[in-house]
Amino acid sequence: MRLYDSPWAPSPRRVRMFLAEKGLDIDCVAVDLRAGANLAPEYLRVNARGCVPALELDDGEVLCESAAICRYLEALHPEPSLFGATPIAIGRIEAWTRRIEGDGYAAAGYALRNAGPAFKDRGLPGKWPPVAQIPELATRALVMWTGFVDTLDEQLASNEWVAGEAYSFADITALVTIDFARAAKLVVPERAANILRWHKAASARPSAGA
Amino acid sequence: MRLYDSPWAPSPRRVRMFLAEKGLDIDCVAVDLRAGANLAPEYLRVNARGCVPALELDDGEVLCESAAICRYLEALHPEPSLFGATPIAIGRIEAWTRRIEGDGYAAAGYALRNAGPAFKDRGLPGKWPPVAQIPELATRALVMWTGFVDTLDEQLASNEWVAGEAYSFADITALVTIDFARAAKLVVPERAANILRWHKAASARPSAGA
Repeated sequence: MRLYDSPWAPSPRRVRMFLAEKGLDIDCVAVDLRAGANLAPEYLRVNARGCVPALELDDGEVLCESAAICRYLEALHPEPSLFGATPIAIGRIEAWTRRIEGDGYAAAGYALRNAGPAFKDRGLPGKWPPVAQIPELATRALVMWTGFVDTLDEQLASNEWVAGEAYSFADITALVTIDFARAAKLVVPERAANILRWHKAASARPSAGA
Repeated sequence: MRLYDSPWAPSPRRVRMFLAEKGLDIDCVAVDLRAGANLAPEYLRVNARGCVPALELDDGEVLCESAAICRYLEALHPEPSLFGATPIAIGRIEAWTRRIEGDGYAAAGYALRNAGPAFKDRGLPGKWPPVAQIPELATRALVMWTGFVDTLDEQLASNEWVAGEAYSFADITALVTIDFARAAKLVVPERAANILRWHKAASARPSAGA
């Protein structure tokens, strides 16, 4: 199998961090988003959505969506578990992953894509008809980001990792979100001391460099 | 355990359909969203986000997010599998679930919440500071909905169910999305014959009435 990847985009980083935590090594093909290679015919034959990451299997089937790729890999390589090994761990990890995506990651995407000339008419990622930017989404993103920070900081006040005692896919999602959001000028404020403690620990793991 | 539920909202319907497909019966507590009961202090003590559904476990822990509740229940009651029993089925179901949510469900939410007086200052679901409506999101929703319809129709041209041969959580998500979107005047057009065939079959299952 091989992974279509892009070095600075957040979704492929989720998969790379997941692979690193699992100790897995997969062939990677770099897709140059800044040059628009994701929208070129060669790549659209792999993934008609024009998004990265995409995992091409040996039989030619292509799996898209970072969470789906990671779940596929977890099923093939269950240890160490990153989606949870007990029902309650599974539920908590999914709940936190969804919350981080819905509040924090969405906020970063709103803020980044809806202002500035780099994303003109590209309000949505991947291949779409022209989608106008909506500057008001940057305002909404600020509300969402504040909610995300407050909720995550409270959770990390009494938990070492996002979903409890064990590092999980929720931590990968949170680290990718927070590091990505900087590009949209959304940052973790000093008052969120628990997130800052956690961010230091998560960033110190070798997977953070993936 | 008991499920905090609301009869007409889409996310709780996902859980109710999931329970019906599993043949599970759980105590339900109705939360009257139209009366704002989800934002009343009694419910905010259960789920500070003010969203339904929420699953309260016997030890008092509360799981939120419909997908997380369903994954918890799948881990407790693996048969019949709705999230996939093989690595590739797991990957496909998650990929389609994410795509349906990201394109179709998000479009319906954008269109519904960002126009009309019913959701004034409630551009996001649940408990947030006032979030202004953004009418331009209804325009964006139309683009997303068209993409959603085209992609799903193509998939269903060669697959009985959304993620392949077996009914799965992706079908639940698609049915909830399509039925919910009607409230936002987003419909499946006649040309999408494969979706219409599938919609009839999915709606004929007892779980559709849950």
